[in-house]
Amino acid sequence: MVKFIYYNGVIYFMNEKELKNKKEKIKNLLLELHKGKSINELKEKCGDIIRSISPFEIPLIEQELIKEGISPWEIAKLCDLHVEIFREVIAGRSEFKDLAPGHPLHTLLMENNQILKDAELLNLYAHALEADEAKLNENIKKLKTFLRELMGVRRHFAKLQMLIFPYLEKRGITAVPSVLWIKEDEVKFMIRNSLKLLEEVENNLPKIVEHLRKLSKTMIDMVFRENNILYPTLKVLLSESEWAAIKEEEEVIGYYKVTPGDEWEPRAEPLYPYQISPEITSSQIESLPVQVRKIIETGKAKGDEYKLVRDGDLELDEGYLSSKEIKAILKTLPVDISFIDKHDRLRFYSESKHGRIFMRTKTVLGRLVHYCHPPKSVGIVKAIIEDFKKGKRDVAEFWIQMNDRFIYIRYFPVRSENGEYLGTLEVVQDVTEIRKLEGEKRLLDWK
Amino acid sequence: MVKFIYYNGVIYFMNEKELKNKKEKIKNLLLELHKGKSINELKEKCGDIIRSISPFEIPLIEQELIKEGISPWEIAKLCDLHVEIFREVIAGRSEFKDLAPGHPLHTLLMENNQILKDAELLNLYAHALEADEAKLNENIKKLKTFLRELMGVRRHFAKLQMLIFPYLEKRGITAVPSVLWIKEDEVKFMIRNSLKLLEEVENNLPKIVEHLRKLSKTMIDMVFRENNILYPTLKVLLSESEWAAIKEEEEVIGYYKVTPGDEWEPRAEPLYPYQISPEITSSQIESLPVQVRKIIETGKAKGDEYKLVRDGDLELDEGYLSSKEIKAILKTLPVDISFIDKHDRLRFYSESKHGRIFMRTKTVLGRLVHYCHPPKSVGIVKAIIEDFKKGKRDVAEFWIQMNDRFIYIRYFPVRSENGEYLGTLEVVQDVTEIRKLEGEKRLLDWK
Repeated sequence: MVKFIYYNGVIYFMNEKELKNKKEKIKNLLLELHKGKSINELKEKCGDIIRSISPFEIPLIEQELIKEGISPWEIAKLCDLHVEIFREVIAGRSEFKDLAPGHPLHTLLMENNQILKDAELLNLYAHALEADEAKLNENIKKLKTFLRELMGVRRHFAKLQMLIFPYLEKRGITAVPSVLWIKEDEVKFMIRNSLKLLEEVENNLPKIVEHLRKLSKTMIDMVFRENNILYPTLKVLLSESEWAAIKEEEEVIGYYKVTPGDEWEPRAEPLYPYQISPEITSSQIESLPVQVRKIIETGKAKGDEYKLVRDGDLELDEGYLSSKEIKAILKTLPVDISFIDKHDRLRFYSESKHGRIFMRTKTVLGRLVHYCHPPKSVGIVKAIIEDFKKGKRDVAEFWIQMNDRFIYIRYFPVRSENGEYLGTLEVVQDVTEIRKLEGEKRLLDWK
Repeated sequence: MVKFIYYNGVIYFMNEKELKNKKEKIKNLLLELHKGKSINELKEKCGDIIRSISPFEIPLIEQELIKEGISPWEIAKLCDLHVEIFREVIAGRSEFKDLAPGHPLHTLLMENNQILKDAELLNLYAHALEADEAKLNENIKKLKTFLRELMGVRRHFAKLQMLIFPYLEKRGITAVPSVLWIKEDEVKFMIRNSLKLLEEVENNLPKIVEHLRKLSKTMIDMVFRENNILYPTLKVLLSESEWAAIKEEEEVIGYYKVTPGDEWEPRAEPLYPYQISPEITSSQIESLPVQVRKIIETGKAKGDEYKLVRDGDLELDEGYLSSKEIKAILKTLPVDISFIDKHDRLRFYSESKHGRIFMRTKTVLGRLVHYCHPPKSVGIVKAIIEDFKKGKRDVAEFWIQMNDRFIYIRYFPVRSENGEYLGTLEVVQDVTEIRKLEGEKRLLDWK
């Protein structure tokens, strides 16, 4: 007899006899683990058995084991072993063989092993909730901690969405990122919902268990899509320069339950998506996973030829703006700014299109800051600036109420990247309305 | 017998007989006004009498008249006449003769006539408070309205402080502005205090009356300092180009109870303080009021040679910044900004030194905005930008609560001065602390 497992639009088959066979083998393994055998020993001894079991079969087998009365927490030990083997399977695949620890793709693969393990554990947690009513409260508490940690998977997603996808979009491959992003959002919302559901367990238990199982499956599915479609595509298309750029930025986002190795060192200058040519060579096409190759062969992938850097643009640390854009942006800011330079001279103020709170006129350009204030407060102004110059202070803030408006005034020292004092920025903001905001208004509430 | 009037460090004399004589003349004038004679008629007929009375004598004469039982409101009518005459006296002074209506100095002189009139009225109001207990409430109400209008005198002050003083500072004349600014602050705080005192009239009446009289005198004194020292100095030193610049900016600040004429038209290009040379010629020195001449002759006025515009500076609409300064200012802003250009491309984001709320990495530079969002919300993002492009909307705002932080997210269309759509600015701000601020913390509370 054949068992059908259906989810996310895919049907998986499993022969009853085969299932029983694999289950017995796993049971033996667990016994060995129970006796104190190490993961490494077992990996060597029973690697083949585990390699023959796909991650999609695991939940099914585990379910059978629980039916036989084996504790879910006993089974959980298996996860480490399984992940260990799975890591080897992936690492053994020809396309990933040459990835040194520390290469961003190597790190992503390591994270996916963790995500797979978490998916398995989640499944076991779901069982435990159902099976062990006596320990319900304890298990719920454990599960909540687990789910909160699982939220960290957003770092894995963010790396794909912000560091990886732009390189594919540039080459016209936009469907693969979109579908993955939807899956990732699904996972994120399901974790959040799980936590919400766990706040009201009464009468909800079957619903919760079902929800957790669905989440587990979605996670496994996501890992497979990444490992089988996304990563092989990246491996073929991205140059060392592109990986170098990704490496430069990935730390800002962080990692999910792994620490990247330090063996890989890029030998090329970083290239950001806006700096690359979107061409895909024919030898690249041949090496791509079939799903992606099809997109390209049917002409659905149009490279993006947009040139970011224009003649006359000011190169900023994080982008390129024309002086026309800078001028208009400074006027559009919802705060009024004034800048005095390191010689205490008023060098710039923004003529906000929202209407300035404290007037400025061009006649004050170049004026010494202590002539810009009532004589009474000059001493204080000087003292604040002195503190900034000496590095003693990073902000001076004031707030006043003026004609029913709440005005927030802040002074910040402006320093170059090496800490040199360049001047002081005054930021004035009418925060009356901000103080009245209530609840939330999210992008998706937009009408 | 001689009466001494002492205030603000100056002693004014007045002969008792002379006072009586002038008082009688004024009484007759009031009688004529009461009969319905027009200001113009009386000005012609009795101009000489009024010209013989200085503004410092007026309060004294008025006081005498009130003692004789004449109503303060009757006497108030005199103010218009007095100001009318005073205007002629000023206008008749050789140095101001050639000022056409609309010239900023002409406007300042007109405002001073109004301030003088207000000072006189204030004195009468003080009398009325004392004299007419039956109408106390009504008089307090009138007085409050009057004082609130009087607060508008800050526009006159602001014009001096922001438009006029920088031209003198540039030439090294800093004491005259400082002393005037102190006087102006005094007037401002005294008006504010008067309003406060009027909230608790009980047992306070004598104090209030004294306070109002002092305010009146301070105002008169200020007008005299301006008319006799500041304005003659400006008349000698400022070129037509400088007045042209002042004219360009004055409307932003506004006027106090006058509407400038439109006869004066500058025939020179505007020059701002940072653009002028601080030299004072010897023929200028000769024509200056003695108080200012002394400052210069004793070498106390050092011209300010600071050059505002440096090589390589970006010329903004309101100032000059080096690209180093611009970069550092954008990082110092207490809000995170991202900018997509008119082609919907992410062109810039700020790497705030306060720590970004929503991460950005250089890999997203040049990315189409609809790839920067979860597929689910792309439709909304596109709709907002479409509204901006069509000019249908000037802001889209959202707020969310995230890990106990209150995050405020706003989108603004960025437009050039002629309204052309240049892109969209995202401004993200952690407003948690702003929402907790209480009371006030003023610059003068700084420790």
